[in-house]
Amino acid sequence: MKAVILSSGGLDSTTCLAVAVDKLGKENVSTVSIFYGQRHARELSCARAVAEFYDVNHYEFDAAEIMKNSSSALLNSSTKTLEHSSYAEQIKNNPRVETYVPFRNGLMLSMAASFADGLYNGAEVEIYIGVHQDDTAVNAYPDCSENFIKAMREAIEIGTYGKIKIVAPFLGKTKADVVKIGTSLEVPYELTWSCYERGEKPCGKCATCIDRAKAFAANGLIDPALKSFGK
Amino acid sequence: MKAVILSSGGLDSTTCLAVAVDKLGKENVSTVSIFYGQRHARELSCARAVAEFYDVNHYEFDAAEIMKNSSSALLNSSTKTLEHSSYAEQIKNNPRVETYVPFRNGLMLSMAASFADGLYNGAEVEIYIGVHQDDTAVNAYPDCSENFIKAMREAIEIGTYGKIKIVAPFLGKTKADVVKIGTSLEVPYELTWSCYERGEKPCGKCATCIDRAKAFAANGLIDPALKSFGK
Repeated sequence: MKAVILSSGGLDSTTCLAVAVDKLGKENVSTVSIFYGQRHARELSCARAVAEFYDVNHYEFDAAEIMKNSSSALLNSSTKTLEHSSYAEQIKNNPRVETYVPFRNGLMLSMAASFADGLYNGAEVEIYIGVHQDDTAVNAYPDCSENFIKAMREAIEIGTYGKIKIVAPFLGKTKADVVKIGTSLEVPYELTWSCYERGEKPCGKCATCIDRAKAFAANGLIDPALKSFGK
Repeated sequence: MKAVILSSGGLDSTTCLAVAVDKLGKENVSTVSIFYGQRHARELSCARAVAEFYDVNHYEFDAAEIMKNSSSALLNSSTKTLEHSSYAEQIKNNPRVETYVPFRNGLMLSMAASFADGLYNGAEVEIYIGVHQDDTAVNAYPDCSENFIKAMREAIEIGTYGKIKIVAPFLGKTKADVVKIGTSLEVPYELTWSCYERGEKPCGKCATCIDRAKAFAANGLIDPALKSFGK
């Protein structure tokens, strides 16, 4: 069995990578990162660093052209200032959160499926994606939901003669659970980047920084990335 | 309602375009063509000609990098000679037909969904795809099947806050039915290209040429593209 990990260089996907390497061995695991015009492009260099740490093959693709008309606040082309509030707060005002990127996970999973099916020439491949319960608790990101993953899993399995399967190991788990699993697997969280801002170190105020800090705190830990970046 | 048509410059997708323009008006319709490294890249210039004929906005995207490792005989990088037999014949030897391109329709639908959701900024959009019963009768292309479309439709609808819907108007219809519908809508079939070969005119021998000729014959017609190309 081969595995391709959708890697953003963030906490969740890096923990996915650790889980896959632990299960299948690094020689059977690759990472794929996709540039879609995100403002926090630093995550791509983190994805490279993480792939290097685990000594796995790493591939990058560019989907920015597809997203060029999107008004998402998460895109580098956006002039919006990010809201500094939790998703639960944001969703009260607008069901479509400002950092939603059009069908992002669907596009990434499809790109990974096409790539993996070509790379491994029709062998069985698992595609890992790090979505978890907190992404969907307030349904801020519909393309992280269990129903979404279920439908994409079915589409990809049917569309690839049953060869490519989506694995979402953290579905139903919280981000605190993810940190717990990752800590037991000694994930190098100091290499990972989650913040949506463009600073030298995590802002500590955006929705994803808030969630990340809480997940470490729930495990009695302080996020090592707070010390490793922006020295 | 807006519509984005996945246009290959071929018979099925051009008929889709005609159906959408007839239903919604040309000002609400756009075409999207995706280059994925196909050997018959002529279809892209046909897609442009067809968009010009219908006077709709036309967009092109490049996904060739994603497919670069695929051994599909349909790719320009392939050194294989295409089998000159029907899909029904081909499938007897190998369930994975040589012209299968990894998760192609899944990737294209996802690209169209991301693009359309960005372009129309969260408005309701229908994405048309020209799959039909003959594509799936022998299950040569699993990413044309009814179950596949159903799963992708669900994934895209969930993943875009319910805004983007897949429309596959020819599901359950034969290619002969498509020609019948298109003929009644005066589709300029002389502008369309289906052949998988790289010739100046359709080869008449590849699986898709065979299917196309039969579809016209079933309507008592001769394919006008046989006269319009390669003069």
